[in-house]
Amino acid sequence: MEEDLSTIAQGVLKHNHRSIARAISIVENGSDEAQQLVQLLFKHSGRSHLIGITGSPGVGKSTLVDALISQMTKEGLKVGVLAIDPTSPFTGGAILGDRIRMQDHTLNKNVFIRSMANRGYKGGIALSTYDAVRVLEASGCQIVIIETVGVGQSELAIAKTADTTVLVLMPGTGDDVQAIKSGIMEIGDVFVVNKGDLPGANRTYTDVMASLELNSYQSSWRPPVVITCAENNEGIENLWQDIKKHKDYLDNSGELLKRRKEKIQTELTELVADMARDNLTHSLQHSQFTQDLLDKLVRQEVDPHSAAQLVVENIFNK
Amino acid sequence: MEEDLSTIAQGVLKHNHRSIARAISIVENGSDEAQQLVQLLFKHSGRSHLIGITGSPGVGKSTLVDALISQMTKEGLKVGVLAIDPTSPFTGGAILGDRIRMQDHTLNKNVFIRSMANRGYKGGIALSTYDAVRVLEASGCQIVIIETVGVGQSELAIAKTADTTVLVLMPGTGDDVQAIKSGIMEIGDVFVVNKGDLPGANRTYTDVMASLELNSYQSSWRPPVVITCAENNEGIENLWQDIKKHKDYLDNSGELLKRRKEKIQTELTELVADMARDNLTHSLQHSQFTQDLLDKLVRQEVDPHSAAQLVVENIFNK
Repeated sequence: MEEDLSTIAQGVLKHNHRSIARAISIVENGSDEAQQLVQLLFKHSGRSHLIGITGSPGVGKSTLVDALISQMTKEGLKVGVLAIDPTSPFTGGAILGDRIRMQDHTLNKNVFIRSMANRGYKGGIALSTYDAVRVLEASGCQIVIIETVGVGQSELAIAKTADTTVLVLMPGTGDDVQAIKSGIMEIGDVFVVNKGDLPGANRTYTDVMASLELNSYQSSWRPPVVITCAENNEGIENLWQDIKKHKDYLDNSGELLKRRKEKIQTELTELVADMARDNLTHSLQHSQFTQDLLDKLVRQEVDPHSAAQLVVENIFNK
Repeated sequence: MEEDLSTIAQGVLKHNHRSIARAISIVENGSDEAQQLVQLLFKHSGRSHLIGITGSPGVGKSTLVDALISQMTKEGLKVGVLAIDPTSPFTGGAILGDRIRMQDHTLNKNVFIRSMANRGYKGGIALSTYDAVRVLEASGCQIVIIETVGVGQSELAIAKTADTTVLVLMPGTGDDVQAIKSGIMEIGDVFVVNKGDLPGANRTYTDVMASLELNSYQSSWRPPVVITCAENNEGIENLWQDIKKHKDYLDNSGELLKRRKEKIQTELTELVADMARDNLTHSLQHSQFTQDLLDKLVRQEVDPHSAAQLVVENIFNK
C-alpha cells in the first residue's frame, strides 16, 4: 500500500530523510497529491534562510556549496540543498559528477541534498522549486540552498526564489564584464570570485567592486565581494559571514517581508497561468467548442489572439 | 501623427523594410496594438519555410546563417532573419558583433535581419516570436530563419517554432556527447558539424551519425549530418540542399500540417496562460477580494495552490 500523505508529512516534520525525499518527488510531479501535501506542510514553512547560488557552468558552484555546507553544519545547522538542473541539454552533464562529490555530506543526518529536474508543471521548474523549498523548511532545515546551473532566464527566476542570492564568478572568463553590462549584477546580494588562485582574480575583484560602486542602491545594503578558492576551503568562512550579515540586514530592514510578498505574488501568478493551461488542455479533449476553434485556427479563419480571447471567455466562464 | 496600423500592414505586404521593422517592434511589445496588427496580417502568413538554427554559443551559428543567406538570395529568395537573444546575461554579448557582420546583407532589399530581445509578454519570447514570424511571412519572405543563442529551455521552445530545425555542433567541445545523452538530438532535422577544419571534426561527425542510427524514428526522414566551415563558405551548399530536401519531405508526408497544428496549439495555450496572468495582475490592482487573498497568503493563512484555485474561480467567472 502507498504511504498516505499525512504519514509522509509527519515524517517530513520529523526530518526523516526518506519522507523528505518522497515528499519532494511528489511536489516535483505537480499533481493533485502535491497540492494536498503542500496544504499539510504550508504552515510549517517560511522560517528558513533561503540562499540562492548562481553563476555560469564551470565557476565551481557545487564545490562552493560543498564547502559552505561544512561551515554551516559545524554550527549545528540543518541544511537542505536543491540543485536545480534546468535540463539545459548542454550543461546537464556537469551536475552529476558534482553531486557525487556532495555525497560525503549525505552521511550527515543534518544535510539533505537533492537534484531536481524540470517536469510536472508546464510553467517550468520555478513552481516545483517553491514547493520543494517548503518541504525542506517544514523538515526543520534552518538553511535551504538553491543551486542553479547556468544563468539563463529560468535560472534567474529560480535564483529569485531565494532571500540571499550569491552570484559566483571566476577570473578570466569575461563573465564579470558580461554580468556588469547586462545588469545581472542587480540580482546579487553577495558576490564571489571563485578560483581565486587563477591569474586575474584581483582584476575581476576590482572590476566587480568598481561596477558595484556605480550602482545607485535603493537600499542600505552594499553587496560585498569575496574572493574564494572553494577547492582549498579558502575564503569560505568570510563568505558565510557575509551571507549571515545579509540575513541580518533582511530581518532588520523589513526587506525580508517585502521580498517574500513579491515572491508569493509571482508564485500565485504562475500557478494561475498553469491552471489556465490545464483548463485549456482539458477543454481541447472534451469541448467541441474548443476543438472547433483549434481547427479554425489551423485553417487561418481566426487569428491566435482572438482565439485565445474566445477561450478565456468561454472556458473559464462556467 | 503616428502611422496607423493599416498603413503599417500595407507597407509590410509590400515588403517595405521600414514598415516591417515598425511592425516587429509593435508585436515585440505585445500590446493591444500588436493583436490588431496580427489580425490584419494573419491571413497573409503561413506560407514561408521556417528554419530554426540552434546550438551552443561559439559554434558559429551567425556565420553559418550569413553564408546560408548568400545561397538563398542567389536563388532570388526573400529572406527574413530573427536573431533571438533570450537575454541570457552571460551570452548576450556575442550577438552584437555577429549582427554587425550581417549588416552586409542589409543593403540587399531581399534580406531583412532583426534581433529580438525578451520583453512584452510575461510568458517569454516565444509568443512574440510567433507574431514576428507572421510579419516576415506576410512581407513575402519565402524563408524565415530563426536563430537562437544558446540551448536552454526557452531556446528550445523557440527552435520548435520552426518547420526545419538545424542543430549546429562543433568539434572538440563535447557538445555532441552532451547532446546525444540528453536527447536533444530529437529536435534536429538537419545536423551541422561547423568549424569542420578543427581537429576532431570527423570524430564528431561519426559520433553524431552513430547516435542517429540508434534512434528509432517514427517518420521516414533520416536527419543528415553536414560538415561545414562557414567562415570559408565550405559545405554551405550541401547544407542548403539538405534543408530543402527536408522541406520537400514535410510537404509530401503531411508532416508540415501536423507540426503546424501542434505549434498553433502550443501558442494558443501560452496566449491563454498569458491572459490569465494579465487578469490576475489587473485584479490585484482593482479587486479587494484578490488583495485580501494575497495578504492571507503572505500571513500563511491559505496555501498558494488553494489561493490560485480561488483566483481562477473568482476572477474568471464574471
